[in-house]
Amino acid sequence: MVLSYDELTFESFEVELKGDPICILPVGATEEHGRHLPLGSDSFQAYSTARALAERVKGLVLPPLSYGVSSSLKDFPGTISLSFEALHLVVRDILRELIRNGIRKIVVLSSHGAQAHMSAIRTACEEAADQGDAKIMALCDYEIAYKLRGTDSIPVDDGHGGVVETSRMLVFTPTLIGDARPIGKDSTPAYLVSRHKKRYMTEGIIGDSSKASSELGKKINSYVVEELVKAVRAVM
Amino acid sequence: MVLSYDELTFESFEVELKGDPICILPVGATEEHGRHLPLGSDSFQAYSTARALAERVKGLVLPPLSYGVSSSLKDFPGTISLSFEALHLVVRDILRELIRNGIRKIVVLSSHGAQAHMSAIRTACEEAADQGDAKIMALCDYEIAYKLRGTDSIPVDDGHGGVVETSRMLVFTPTLIGDARPIGKDSTPAYLVSRHKKRYMTEGIIGDSSKASSELGKKINSYVVEELVKAVRAVM
Amino acid sequence: MVLSYDELTFESFEVELKGDPICILPVGATEEHGRHLPLGSDSFQAYSTARALAERVKGLVLPPLSYGVSSSLKDFPGTISLSFEALHLVVRDILRELIRNGIRKIVVLSSHGAQAHMSAIRTACEEAADQGDAKIMALCDYEIAYKLRGTDSIPVDDGHGGVVETSRMLVFTPTLIGDARPIGKDSTPAYLVSRHKKRYMTEGIIGDSSKASSELGKKINSYVVEELVKAVRAVM
Amino acid sequence: MVLSYDELTFESFEVELKGDPICILPVGATEEHGRHLPLGSDSFQAYSTARALAERVKGLVLPPLSYGVSSSLKDFPGTISLSFEALHLVVRDILRELIRNGIRKIVVLSSHGAQAHMSAIRTACEEAADQGDAKIMALCDYEIAYKLRGTDSIPVDDGHGGVVETSRMLVFTPTLIGDARPIGKDSTPAYLVSRHKKRYMTEGIIGDSSKASSELGKKINSYVVEELVKAVRAVM
Amino acid sequence: MVLSYDELTFESFEVELKGDPICILPVGATEEHGRHLPLGSDSFQAYSTARALAERVKGLVLPPLSYGVSSSLKDFPGTISLSFEALHLVVRDILRELIRNGIRKIVVLSSHGAQAHMSAIRTACEEAADQGDAKIMALCDYEIAYKLRGTDSIPVDDGHGGVVETSRMLVFTPTLIGDARPIGKDSTPAYLVSRHKKRYMTEGIIGDSSKASSELGKKINSYVVEELVKAVRAVM
Amino acid sequence: MVLSYDELTFESFEVELKGDPICILPVGATEEHGRHLPLGSDSFQAYSTARALAERVKGLVLPPLSYGVSSSLKDFPGTISLSFEALHLVVRDILRELIRNGIRKIVVLSSHGAQAHMSAIRTACEEAADQGDAKIMALCDYEIAYKLRGTDSIPVDDGHGGVVETSRMLVFTPTLIGDARPIGKDSTPAYLVSRHKKRYMTEGIIGDSSKASSELGKKINSYVVEELVKAVRAVM
Repeated sequence: MVLSYDELTFESFEVELKGDPICILPVGATEEHGRHLPLGSDSFQAYSTARALAERVKGLVLPPLSYGVSSSLKDFPGTISLSFEALHLVVRDILRELIRNGIRKIVVLSSHGAQAHMSAIRTACEEAADQGDAKIMALCDYEIAYKLRGTDSIPVDDGHGGVVETSRMLVFTPTLIGDARPIGKDSTPAYLVSRHKKRYMTEGIIGDSSKASSELGKKINSYVVEELVKAVRAVM
Repeated sequence: MVLSYDELTFESFEVELKGDPICILPVGATEEHGRHLPLGSDSFQAYSTARALAERVKGLVLPPLSYGVSSSLKDFPGTISLSFEALHLVVRDILRELIRNGIRKIVVLSSHGAQAHMSAIRTACEEAADQGDAKIMALCDYEIAYKLRGTDSIPVDDGHGGVVETSRMLVFTPTLIGDARPIGKDSTPAYLVSRHKKRYMTEGIIGDSSKASSELGKKINSYVVEELVKAVRAVM
Repeated sequence: MVLSYDELTFESFEVELKGDPICILPVGATEEHGRHLPLGSDSFQAYSTARALAERVKGLVLPPLSYGVSSSLKDFPGTISLSFEALHLVVRDILRELIRNGIRKIVVLSSHGAQAHMSAIRTACEEAADQGDAKIMALCDYEIAYKLRGTDSIPVDDGHGGVVETSRMLVFTPTLIGDARPIGKDSTPAYLVSRHKKRYMTEGIIGDSSKASSELGKKINSYVVEELVKAVRAVM
Repeated sequence: MVLSYDELTFESFEVELKGDPICILPVGATEEHGRHLPLGSDSFQAYSTARALAERVKGLVLPPLSYGVSSSLKDFPGTISLSFEALHLVVRDILRELIRNGIRKIVVLSSHGAQAHMSAIRTACEEAADQGDAKIMALCDYEIAYKLRGTDSIPVDDGHGGVVETSRMLVFTPTLIGDARPIGKDSTPAYLVSRHKKRYMTEGIIGDSSKASSELGKKINSYVVEELVKAVRAVM
Repeated sequence: MVLSYDELTFESFEVELKGDPICILPVGATEEHGRHLPLGSDSFQAYSTARALAERVKGLVLPPLSYGVSSSLKDFPGTISLSFEALHLVVRDILRELIRNGIRKIVVLSSHGAQAHMSAIRTACEEAADQGDAKIMALCDYEIAYKLRGTDSIPVDDGHGGVVETSRMLVFTPTLIGDARPIGKDSTPAYLVSRHKKRYMTEGIIGDSSKASSELGKKINSYVVEELVKAVRAVM
Repeated sequence: MVLSYDELTFESFEVELKGDPICILPVGATEEHGRHLPLGSDSFQAYSTARALAERVKGLVLPPLSYGVSSSLKDFPGTISLSFEALHLVVRDILRELIRNGIRKIVVLSSHGAQAHMSAIRTACEEAADQGDAKIMALCDYEIAYKLRGTDSIPVDDGHGGVVETSRMLVFTPTLIGDARPIGKDSTPAYLVSRHKKRYMTEGIIGDSSKASSELGKKINSYVVEELVKAVRAVM
């Protein structure tokens, strides 16, 4: 059974605290994910993966953050992108409060990996690490998942909304995945900071989602959790 | 059927957009709620109430914010309190992005009502209202629920974790409510900005939770939704 | 005789400091108050009440802040509304400096009670309270004055610029009060965050100012000061 | 008769607005001024000078700001120093609101002249000037008063709390000036940013206050007002 | 001949402006680079590369920024790490001002590639791109240089202060490179946000600097400039 | 030989640290300097003067900051003006990091002297001085150079780009100085915060640059360095 932080009373929280639990904060995003995947794909993945990890390490899952920094996809309908500062402050405050409460082991697990997004999270984590003795890990689980690129049927250039992500989502929220299986290719001019990314990304994805399957998704998800468990056990 | 914003694809979002939908952002908190109610009580109430409202007005429910400004309860184990600025920026960014996407009707529905918390939300809403033509409502549903104080078995001084809140929670998340039914009384010296609120609030609640019942909860919840529907229809 | 902080030299301040004085910071606003009351009504009330309180508790009155957060009345001519952040920082800095100087008892007394305004003040007070051992009280004196609603000739829904405020002002600054006695009614749609409040508040007041009198004003002012003295003596 | 902004009703403000009035914002400070002058010396001077100017140019005097940036005198008892950001935001907000109200001529008149203090004010003025068509002047009236150094009995190195300031204060608030007439000399090592200025400034003043007189004060005050009137008439 | 922005007068700047020049902002860092490379290695590389690029595209080289975000190397002596916000604001302001001056083509070229560092730069670039019609490129030239990993004698895991960086520096500032050729290996536990990175990085580099040579350096530098020229020509 | 901070390795920095060195941070600006002087004039002067000072006091020269707050010259082509906050944060961060590294003697040497610019620097220095035991000096070297006004051929009202500055530049960067020798006069209306300074400063300088000579420049530069050495030796 996985414990949710928000389902505890203040007294049962005190009991859990004695066991020096690992608190896991899932961070997602609300952004375009192609014609086949829902806007909340990153949130669904982060939450499911956090729970799978919590089950293995007896962790405590915090209420998820479902909004992230998604500036590069703002041109697509539905994307809600936080500013760097907003995400930074929210994560900073949550970590500060956990440490103030006596929590000493924290994992911030994002399934969205945009540079500014991860940077806002890591900046907050560094500040919290400076605050005291807590051990803090921060990662995007795609840093793990994409190690599988080049294996199986996963192309080395698979990306946003592609084979890996579609496969994972077919496991996590199968009923939300439509029939479309778009094939997308990012052709943004190198290094250009463009105001009109949509011009360069017609499908809004990078990869061939038609190669996705729930079998592959299960395999990827297992791999991600196993690697997460190893990483957590190495330091916590 | 209630539509969740994060379950839409960017294409189905575009379709919904044409109907000029009301977007509802549920805002909760993660804070002490007595020995009988979970830390996430405000989040559970906000989410459930937002969905009930969405069902009635064909609204679109946004991913909830489960952290709020809870500074007065920081002394109790488990409370995670955001700074004013963090909550302000997150709500500001979400509203800005919704308006940028073409959304013109927004309801920010909080079940946590602390002054600084609501003030952070309203400040963000005012900025968004200055941005353009969107109609924005912001409220704590306890502004409605507490209108029932003095009726039925609800004392006029019922408050945090008391009869009303326990009754509502018995409907929303019955399995999370323990057997304890504490009776609490706030005796914080008037107007004192104290660093040690816990000293004055032994039970962490204000009211007599033993008088709560799911019957009363259903009644209150119905009343809240009816009033919300009226308020929304009056302007949107 | 009431001591004003700004009338002391640095040496006479040092002498006063030995008596562990209560420092009182009056906070007002510059905003529309109906056709009969001046823009500085809240400042005049805060300053007069602070002096009356100082007289009773041998307090030291600080130079007043005459600007506040008045966003909801921005549509009316003359209103000057600070941002939350501006008021927050000024109050934070003043309290920090008082505590650095050795002051250990502080009362922030506002006669303007807007949610964001009081929230900016209280947020600053909480930060100062976290800073050390100072005892800090913060309130809007209308939290006291409106306890009289429902007594005498004061209607339960009296508000901004109504019977209570007009009566108090007839005592504090009688020569500034004109002959007009408007009757106003707030009909802003519930919970709407509107950009055009003026549309809903033709008179800019809430209540029937024609029922005001200096006799009632004296009574209210006495009550406010007595309650303030009690509250201060309870903790300082 | 001098008009005070805060004494107008919203309707009389509207009437005044038609005359395109010059709004004058007095800015003072709360800081050590030697054993003979009160902590609020700069505020008293700013307010009195603003009113004298208003009388001459038919200006509208705003409620004064009585706190400034006084970091170099923090070591002395009683000094309350705002941060740069606090003063900057308050002045910025007041100017923004005046311009929003239709005011097109603004004079920010400080009697405190610290570099960071004036810089906070001028930065706010520049932002307001960028906002639109308002004509904005900002100055410390000591930029004028010290032009008299080297004339009469005023030494060229007269400064904070010295002959000029003591003389002016003998006119403005004669009852608050004690019998002491300290002689001070600033011997802070050149360019050193010191944490312990008090070590270098035993009297807390720069100059020989024993040479001050109300006759000289009247002369200086007249000169300051005349120059102010000229400067204002040159551009407004 | 390469034009330096700061060597132009305001009149010669106006002349250059007519040619719609590409402005290149070199961004470095001041941080530990192993026992053999100077603290300013990233600044030297950025400046030299910017000039080489300017020569090819007739660009205008801006004064370099020699400080960056280097939080992960703070444990090593000499590292000066800016906060995210400081770098973000400086780059934002420079870009804003260039655009205000009429510059329409900007390349921000960093030789430091830390995630938060590049994220601060890119966030500023995105804001500037939103401001108007300027075309803005932003990159760390190691995004190009490391494409050569796996070719020649460059290992696939070469990193900070390794073969590539040492080789490049042997070309740019040969007299500053000492005789030491350390071999380092990053063994920071995966995803850990550590306060004590030095514990895990004894040499402060990642790679085998003994394999570096100025021949290889010239080859890498040429490749970097060629790729930069291509990227610039593709969009500007 | 003058040591440059950025040319040291982390090990040689550690060696230097033992000698308790004076770190000198040169701060310039990128702004209009008349038709005869380059945009980077202040940066060139700051850097050259810092090196001359370092030679005399065995100081360590930090990488220069070449951008400053130049708001009053924004109307002239080429000026790049930072916001107060950007300069403040960068200087604050650099000083913080130096102190964290064990540096205890710091000189911030600017050749640009605008009020807001110096105020941003000094505010940062005060914060760093509050941080611990470091001795910090901050100045614009024109505070020294202009003491020579009224001597030799230097008029008492010489200013920006005039005799003194042109003479100094003829020594520092003779090849960058053109043949023009403009004569300028600032006639900005007193105390006006203008959006259109260029209207009042046709030549963009204050003074008669035709009276400048490299002989005078050498004399001034020597004087500046001697005075700097004295000031530094008095406290460090």
